[in-house]
Formats: sequence, structure tokens, C-alpha cells
Amino acid sequence: MYGAGDVRVIDAADPSIQQPTDALVRVVRASVCGSDLHPYHSKPDTPEGSSMGHEFVGIVEEVGAEVTTLRRRDFVIAPFAVSDGTCEFCRAGLQTSCIHGGFWNDQHLGTAGGQAEAVRVPLADGTLVKVPGVDADTDEARLGDLLTLSDVYGTGWHAATRGGVRPGSTVTVIGDGAVGLLAVLSAKQLGAERIVLMGRHKQRTDLGREFGATDVVAERGEEGVTRVRELTGGGSPIVLEAVGHLPAYEQAVGIVRAGGVISRVGVPQYEEAPVGFGSIFGPNVTLTGGPAPARAYIEPLLPVVLDGTANPGRVFDRTVALENVSEGYTAMDNRSCLKVMVRPS
Amino acid sequence: MYGAGDVRVIDAADPSIQQPTDALVRVVRASVCGSDLHPYHSKPDTPEGSSMGHEFVGIVEEVGAEVTTLRRRDFVIAPFAVSDGTCEFCRAGLQTSCIHGGFWNDQHLGTAGGQAEAVRVPLADGTLVKVPGVDADTDEARLGDLLTLSDVYGTGWHAATRGGVRPGSTVTVIGDGAVGLLAVLSAKQLGAERIVLMGRHKQRTDLGREFGATDVVAERGEEGVTRVRELTGGGSPIVLEAVGHLPAYEQAVGIVRAGGVISRVGVPQYEEAPVGFGSIFGPNVTLTGGPAPARAYIEPLLPVVLDGTANPGRVFDRTVALENVSEGYTAMDNRSCLKVMVRPS
Repeated sequence: MYGAGDVRVIDAADPSIQQPTDALVRVVRASVCGSDLHPYHSKPDTPEGSSMGHEFVGIVEEVGAEVTTLRRRDFVIAPFAVSDGTCEFCRAGLQTSCIHGGFWNDQHLGTAGGQAEAVRVPLADGTLVKVPGVDADTDEARLGDLLTLSDVYGTGWHAATRGGVRPGSTVTVIGDGAVGLLAVLSAKQLGAERIVLMGRHKQRTDLGREFGATDVVAERGEEGVTRVRELTGGGSPIVLEAVGHLPAYEQAVGIVRAGGVISRVGVPQYEEAPVGFGSIFGPNVTLTGGPAPARAYIEPLLPVVLDGTANPGRVFDRTVALENVSEGYTAMDNRSCLKVMVRPS
Repeated sequence: MYGAGDVRVIDAADPSIQQPTDALVRVVRASVCGSDLHPYHSKPDTPEGSSMGHEFVGIVEEVGAEVTTLRRRDFVIAPFAVSDGTCEFCRAGLQTSCIHGGFWNDQHLGTAGGQAEAVRVPLADGTLVKVPGVDADTDEARLGDLLTLSDVYGTGWHAATRGGVRPGSTVTVIGDGAVGLLAVLSAKQLGAERIVLMGRHKQRTDLGREFGATDVVAERGEEGVTRVRELTGGGSPIVLEAVGHLPAYEQAVGIVRAGGVISRVGVPQYEEAPVGFGSIFGPNVTLTGGPAPARAYIEPLLPVVLDGTANPGRVFDRTVALENVSEGYTAMDNRSCLKVMVRPS
């Protein structure tokens, strides 16, 4: 990405093993994330560009000398953060705070992005999750489900678990993007009884209903607040914020019930926000969430994906070839599609 | 209070029963709260003034026809919020969000403040807690301990419980005022193993050590952050913020460990604060707390106060007669004393 709206596919040098803990992964499927749209809207022009993409599944091509859990031909899921798997934070399931970790397209780690044919994966034992029994050529239908474990499914799950969803909960999800819809699915899986989905794109909210939403609120702003407060009898005890823009935060503050929880997973496009007496302090509202440690959730969520109980891959409604990835950005940006899968070859 | 720094004692009309759910309480002891200092610093001049005080214990003088749990001569503790005791929020232990409740000196409820000889208490059955066996004349020594249950002890307890303190926890408390010190005591009672107290007033931090602080950090700002991060091996998993000014919030953000909790009970003197990727979102920090439902904690904490296990009343280091309450404000403001008790007669 060379600037806002400027996505180009270029020939980059082939990645190679640089550290004995690296693996080289041939990408089978990647995807475009809602958070990729933030730089797509605002990135200043840069002649050198940035490598993009942090969601991919692939096949191990080569491993460094110290990699012990992976071998050539393994099918792997790459979460959106690199982690060593051994530090205090990794052991606590907070791999996004790994003391040796980082992200894709990370200058410090020297990583490139996953919207590519192949990727060098640092700290491969910690980062990658091997999925036995997947044949990338014949299991086409499962690739989307598996790919969501890279980020969006784990992120929706993080929202719901951090929000404290449990059997019988009343939950409101703000945002009908892929993360919002998978937050609905996650809340449903955790036993929520009432799930209000705030979103205005019928095709998306229809999928939200299939995932478990019991109510859809298309209104925004004051109207949306009033509607949700009516539906929930005075405010939603749990609010999952899956957008990241300030108005979505304000919406969350408006609809949350006293003593309730706002769990954010949309990457905040703001640094300051209201947290004083008149917003969250007065009603003893808890604000939680952050970047999901997707790595922590891949293994727990894998069984329901593999046995078909959950079909999170339904969020993909378009596939583009890598050479056409720019069209994918355009389609997600103009909302003609929900989420784009990228096929490198 | 007629404006910043302008506290006067006036003759007000005697309060009287106005609703059948009211009680009339003769104040035995009241106190000045750290939060009273906020208007003491910034209140605009107002000819009509504001009645002050939200912490008091007293004797029931008269009850309305519908009051069932209290009678004349009962010794009672008044928490800093009025609550009906029956609504959804009261039943959930969040009396500060009572749908019929409010505060002292509350226009909506028509309440006056507790720094007075007598107070009309609305919703008396819900609001007041009777303490059998206390003789206001002969139990002088226990009055301070009991008075802290009105606000500051419950507020320190709220900070600690919302922060999730449990046996073995490492906790940092920001602020060496009465609430900070009682947050230390509460953390200790909940089993915290390591309690770092951030404060620079030796007399106060010495009391903090007696309450259970294992370390005292006098430094502030960047230096304070560095020191606490060193002491806690990379950040404090639980931070209790008992000040309410923005620099204290920033301190909390600086010292909290990834995945940790900031529990605020200092009334925020700001509305907006950093909550984006670079502050609390990135490291998955949870921000919780709010005005303590002191009412919820009076009964659970009463036994350790009555049997002398806890002596939260040690935070009082000066008593003034009601007619001299202005001196109490001055003394707390210039930090020549920690917390002032007010004796109406």
C-alpha cells in the first residue's frame, strides 16, 4: 500500500529463513481485514509502500534448525501476531503482548505482510498452529472457516469472553462487519440469550441473525441509543464494540447499562475518549478489550470449525486472486462485499 | 460553600419529615472528604451557596410512617448515596445507580449535606444501616471507624474488589489520601502479597505501611512509572487509582502491566482521557471502577470494624467542631492533616 486507496501488487524478493526459529510458509489463502481499511483511508503517500495483510493460512515450505513442532507440508494457521509461546504473557494467553513478539509488516521483526505468495514467520513454534488432516487442494470448503481463526473469529471471541458473556446474557454488538458478526456467533456459542446487533446493511445483519442475533437495530446515534435501551429494558449489560471509530465508542457508552461492560475489539481510530463521571465512571461501567490474542483461541475454537458446528467462514463473500487484491479493498471499502478472501495462485 | 475556599457555617431551617419513607437523623459525627476539596478549589461564587458533606453517622430522631426497619434512637451509618434498597441495581449491590436514589445536597431529592446538626434522609429503609449496641456518648473511640463506612473505607474496598485483588495479588495504589490508604488496607484484607503505595507524604505513607503497604514510591511522573515497573518486574497487574486528577490516570496507564486492571475510585476531574492503542487498548488493560456503592459494603465490613480487626478510623487525624469546619477544609487542603472529623455539638 503506497498511500490511501493505492494498493499495488509487486514482485518482492522471495523470503528466506533468517533465524533458526523461522519458518517459511507458502500462503494458501489470505484475507483483507476491516482494519486494513483504516490505512486505506488515511495512509500518507510513501514511495516505499507497506507490505499488507495479517490473516493467512498456508503450507510450511521450510523450517529453521531450531523449529521443533512444524515440518515441511504442514498446514498452518497464522494468527495476526507473532509470539514466542513461552514468555509470561504467552503462557497467560495474551500473545499480543509477547515480550519477543510483534506483528506482520513489523519493522522491528523484519516481517512482511500475509497478502503474498509466501511469508517468513519468526518464532514459528510459538506463532503457527498446525492443523492435521487439511489438504489445501481438496478442502477448499473449509479454508474460509480456518482462515477466520487467523483473526476475525478469535477477535469476535475475544470481545465476547472479555465482555463476560455467559449463559443467559443480554449482549449488544456494535458493528456488522466480519468481527461484529463473529462476536454475535461467539456470544451465541457462550450461551447469550438476547443478542442485539447494531448494523444497517441488511445482507450482513441477515447473516448476523443466522449467527444468533435476536434483534437488529439499524438506527445510529441518539435514535440507536434509545432503541437499544428500550429493547434491553434500560441498557445492555454487555456491549461488544467491533468498529473502532469514536462514534461507535460513544454509542457503546450510550447503550451500556449501569454496572455493565464495554468490550472493545475494533482498533481505536482515536486516542482520547470520554471516561469521566458523565460517561463510564458514574455508572461504574467497565471498559475492557484490546487486540485479540488470536493465537490463544485457535486451538480451543478449532474443533467446532473442523466438525462444522460453526461456520465462521460465511463472512467471506468474495474471493479475488492476489493480483487483483486492490479490487478486494475497493469492494470492502464501498461495502459491496463483507470480507474478501485472497488466493495467491 | 459559597465559592472556592469560602466555607461558612450558617443557621439553616431545621429539617423535617417530608415523605413517609424519610427519617430524620441527628448527626453524631460527619467528615470532610477529599472530593469536597474539588469544589473547594474550583467552585464559582454563588450567593445561595451549597450544603456540604456526604459522610456521617448519627441517631435517628424521627421516622416517617412507612419506615419499617428503623426507630427513634437507632445509631445509623449513612452511606454517601441515597438508595431505595429494592430496585434492580440496589439488589445487584450497585446502590449508586439506584433508580430512585441520589446523593446528599441533591436538588432532585431535596437533600442537604451531612456537615450539619441534623439531616433529612430520604428512602431511609434503603439508605441507612442500623448498628446495634453503639452508644454515641460512650463509644467515642469507635465512631471514627464506623464513620469511614460512610464512604472512604467502602470506596477503598470498592477499588480493591473491582480491581480483582485476591490472595497473592500484586497491587499498586496511587494516592496517599484516606481512600488510597484504605485501598491499601482493603487489598491487604483481600490477601494481596505485594502492595506498592505511591505517595509522598511520609506521615501518610507510614500509616499506609501499617495498613499493609510493602513498598512506598514517592516519585511521580516518568520516574514514578520507572520505579513501579522495576519493583513489579514489568508493571503492576492491578492498579488502584484513588486521586481523580488526570496525571494520576496517566500514572496508572504508565505502571499497569499488559492484561492488567486499572480500578478508579478517585472522582475524575477530567472527562476525556487516553484509551487508544497506545494507552490501554494495545496492552489489553481493563479500566473499571466508579463511585463506590458504599451501602453494599457496610454490612460485610461492619464485623471487622466492630471487633477491632480493622481500624480504618486511623485516617482521622483531626477533629473540629462544626462551627470550625472551615478550618478543617483549610487543614486538608494544605495537607497539614489527612482527614477531618466534624463534631456537631
